[in-house]
Amino acid sequence: SLAHRCHHRATAMLDVPFLPFCAFLGTLGLLCVAMVGTWCQHWRGGFSLDGSSRTFNWHPVLMVTGLVVLYGAAALVYRIPNTWSGPKLPWKVLHGSLALGAFVLTVLGLAAVFCFHNSQGTPNMYSLHSWMGLGTVLLFSCQWAAGFGAFLLPWAPTWLRALYKPIHVFFGSTILMLSMASCVSGINEKLFFSLKNGTMAYKLLPAEAVFANTLGLLILIFGVLVVAALARPSWKRPDSDSPDSRQVQDTLGG
Amino acid sequence: SLAHRCHHRATAMLDVPFLPFCAFLGTLGLLCVAMVGTWCQHWRGGFSLDGSSRTFNWHPVLMVTGLVVLYGAAALVYRIPNTWSGPKLPWKVLHGSLALGAFVLTVLGLAAVFCFHNSQGTPNMYSLHSWMGLGTVLLFSCQWAAGFGAFLLPWAPTWLRALYKPIHVFFGSTILMLSMASCVSGINEKLFFSLKNGTMAYKLLPAEAVFANTLGLLILIFGVLVVAALARPSWKRPDSDSPDSRQVQDTLGG
Repeated sequence: SLAHRCHHRATAMLDVPFLPFCAFLGTLGLLCVAMVGTWCQHWRGGFSLDGSSRTFNWHPVLMVTGLVVLYGAAALVYRIPNTWSGPKLPWKVLHGSLALGAFVLTVLGLAAVFCFHNSQGTPNMYSLHSWMGLGTVLLFSCQWAAGFGAFLLPWAPTWLRALYKPIHVFFGSTILMLSMASCVSGINEKLFFSLKNGTMAYKLLPAEAVFANTLGLLILIFGVLVVAALARPSWKRPDSDSPDSRQVQDTLGG
Repeated sequence: SLAHRCHHRATAMLDVPFLPFCAFLGTLGLLCVAMVGTWCQHWRGGFSLDGSSRTFNWHPVLMVTGLVVLYGAAALVYRIPNTWSGPKLPWKVLHGSLALGAFVLTVLGLAAVFCFHNSQGTPNMYSLHSWMGLGTVLLFSCQWAAGFGAFLLPWAPTWLRALYKPIHVFFGSTILMLSMASCVSGINEKLFFSLKNGTMAYKLLPAEAVFANTLGLLILIFGVLVVAALARPSWKRPDSDSPDSRQVQDTLGG
């Protein structure tokens, strides 16, 4: 029937293949990294390790690069169809290494802001941004350690892996949502701190404000697309290829 | 075997039933509404319609109540097992009405902040918070209108409903993630505006700051739990009960 043909054609239109989608996401991620670098270099005085605001500038660059872009890449490894057959260990190592890279950049990003605050005599950890951001990083560290212990070390029994896997998947998306929220609140806060005077006030929307607001929106789009790609059923590994991959379908956020 | 028994018992432990989970979520949602009301009443001078900061105070209360809590309730309607059989129209009307209620509160919340800015001579729409927040509300208005046109009006053909449904589901979760991010950036920004002087500075973490930071974290937990409940496979309506509910499984975020 006509209705059937319409439905079929329209569904095919929506059925984006994974790899071109990934290429688009990769471009968007690199654009976010380039923009946060440009913001700090061009408008905020560049980078140094002297405890000044130029030390602080490492904070947004490392957080966007680590906790958003590299984290997103790590999360998507098991959506690559090549990972669904053959030996799993190399892909596990790739997933764990990308996540470890993301974690190292994140910790350096925290070090940058603590170093800046301490050398300026500003208290640490008072704003909602800092509470949410540190909470996100703590969740990320638990996630990495538990994933390493359960999936890479050889000792965990199969039932424990099957039990923990949907929890790991759930926190994988949750941590990314929390990093998006941390990034946008941080950019918003930094623009209020930096743009205060005369014609450069935030409320007059100088070029820097438009640029950094746009960066915030692109980070949100990147994060939403990664979370959506992770949730999409047809991009998940089919369940039956090896005992290790048996999923506990009935568990929160699976 | 022992491993089998362990897995079984542990899986059963994770298998929370929907209704107690909902009761918990409802309590958490009411707590968020009570806390944002208490914050504005006790620390920010209460409510009025005179264009002062007491008019602004309606903004956080209406946004948390509408765009987070009532929106979350609307999103979860189809996860109630009673909705899976029998006539669908009453549940569609309930879902649409709750969403409309959330939308009306949201628009009143926008009116409160525009009225405050205009009467103070402050420009509108410059911060990342405002860009993200208005973008979220615009997406929400498209979502409501498209949902009404496709699912409540009788004219949409079945293939169009089946095609649009996973898109509606995807944007349902996305809009909630964006509202969470908008709320926390807004609370963060408001605390920097309000707590500037002497012993009440935000960086000295007075009681108000601890209270509102905690509110921000509770909003994040509420939103993450709603998004997780929406994504959980065993809480979705089984696919085969009526022609209308046939899902296009292969579409983004389905």
